[in-house]
Amino acid sequence: MGRVTDTARVRTVRVRDGKLYAGRKGDHVAVEEPLDIRLNGQRLSLTMRTPGHDVELIHGFLHGEGLIERREDVAEARYCDGAVVEDETGLPRNTYNVMEFTTARPQLLPVASRAFATSSACGVCGAESIEAVRRRGRFTLGADWRIDPRVVLQAARELGERQPVFARTGGVHAAALVGRDGEILVVREDVGRHNAVDKVIGWALLEDRLPLADCFLLVSSRASFEIAQKAALAGVPLLACVSAASSLAVDTAEAFGMTLLGFARAADDGDGRLNVYTGEDRLDLSAVEG
Amino acid sequence: MGRVTDTARVRTVRVRDGKLYAGRKGDHVAVEEPLDIRLNGQRLSLTMRTPGHDVELIHGFLHGEGLIERREDVAEARYCDGAVVEDETGLPRNTYNVMEFTTARPQLLPVASRAFATSSACGVCGAESIEAVRRRGRFTLGADWRIDPRVVLQAARELGERQPVFARTGGVHAAALVGRDGEILVVREDVGRHNAVDKVIGWALLEDRLPLADCFLLVSSRASFEIAQKAALAGVPLLACVSAASSLAVDTAEAFGMTLLGFARAADDGDGRLNVYTGEDRLDLSAVEG
Repeated sequence: MGRVTDTARVRTVRVRDGKLYAGRKGDHVAVEEPLDIRLNGQRLSLTMRTPGHDVELIHGFLHGEGLIERREDVAEARYCDGAVVEDETGLPRNTYNVMEFTTARPQLLPVASRAFATSSACGVCGAESIEAVRRRGRFTLGADWRIDPRVVLQAARELGERQPVFARTGGVHAAALVGRDGEILVVREDVGRHNAVDKVIGWALLEDRLPLADCFLLVSSRASFEIAQKAALAGVPLLACVSAASSLAVDTAEAFGMTLLGFARAADDGDGRLNVYTGEDRLDLSAVEG
Repeated sequence: MGRVTDTARVRTVRVRDGKLYAGRKGDHVAVEEPLDIRLNGQRLSLTMRTPGHDVELIHGFLHGEGLIERREDVAEARYCDGAVVEDETGLPRNTYNVMEFTTARPQLLPVASRAFATSSACGVCGAESIEAVRRRGRFTLGADWRIDPRVVLQAARELGERQPVFARTGGVHAAALVGRDGEILVVREDVGRHNAVDKVIGWALLEDRLPLADCFLLVSSRASFEIAQKAALAGVPLLACVSAASSLAVDTAEAFGMTLLGFARAADDGDGRLNVYTGEDRLDLSAVEG
């Protein structure tokens, strides 16, 4: 799997009935490498990510930072020619870890990306963080569709089967965009859950699908403020996570009228459960028993 | 639990044999709030964290950034007086989300904290990230003790029982420092795994225990570059994580001579397993069967 997983022989240790056993086996670890994101000649961010889908990742990242709105806003995206190191044989090789983006409107400078840079107030709080997202947003989550919770759970089960890097390494998060009919449109994996989300939103931006009014975002991980923020800015009306949601993720979803589902888990036989934190109106519960 | 967990009534949905059931229940979510870290009058960082142990968190963070070495390096730490918002009743209240640190050597300015600021090379890669850590480090991991893997597994089992916020919310990571004898010295929880690590390292710094030559660091989560880096800078000879390690965590551990254990999991009956990625010399395997 190229630069996505790495192999190593590891020592394994087991304890059974208080006794110690040791062995060796081949093992796979998820690759984590730095990505230097440069915008219009300036360094914008250095993030640790799993290589692959870097162009999507950066499009999603720039969108989440409020720096671009659509694919036409990016004039050029390229791996920096000079990004070379000498390999073991002394030959130069491109690291593919430095990407230079040029925007169509070059006045978009990195400084604009600092979510909190404009806030000189001393009393920072969750409400202020949400307000900063609102200032970057250009939409309302107007989608008035409803979805059967079984569709969400079915997608969560399917996502579990479509994480090849996780299956090998146990070391990455996944994000997916899912249509209202339950069709999984795209899945991306990364050591950073925010990167996985940036990758699927970047994919959607490149496919001219923003705002994502007819999809939901499904993440294999927890939902934090950062994830909820990225979902809201992409116009996603519903965010489902397999694990827990934080208080600020709940508050953010509430503020933007987004439906937030947590602990969305289903077994192979279809049995499952989820918690509804906000926006329960988007769940079709008309088939509820009793 | 004050500002650490928040309560909400949530809608619960279950699917059994294809049928839909719904209810309501009280639920706890882990609190996530911004922490504005200011150093010598300048904003250094804005991080999302679970409130509590903020002083430890910032000490650990500053240490990991190479800005302080010992507790005497911090002249003052205080919640910013002006950090007030109006609450629902219109009265001002301190958010306790802004902390101002003043160093004993005020020439330590935020700019020094940029791990990669000095790198003008275009060819960023994992080796360069490791080199940046090395430049900040002032130690070698010289500890030559050995530990029985059963001690590590026992601690991993105990850590699982000492995560009250996780038990309530399922939404936080934990980090612990554990003595060579298996005694858990300190446990901290946070929505951010890096914050949990900063908190325990900050605790150690305030206890004058750095470098942590006689402890190991145990994390309930994955081990990324960031976690391995913080452990190495604190002088921890052994890092054990309950989940997977990334490629760059393995490389970092290797570069600093740190032992890295992954998937360290034990059941209540003491049976368990772990993988040894680097530094197997520190594991006492003399009791291995056969």
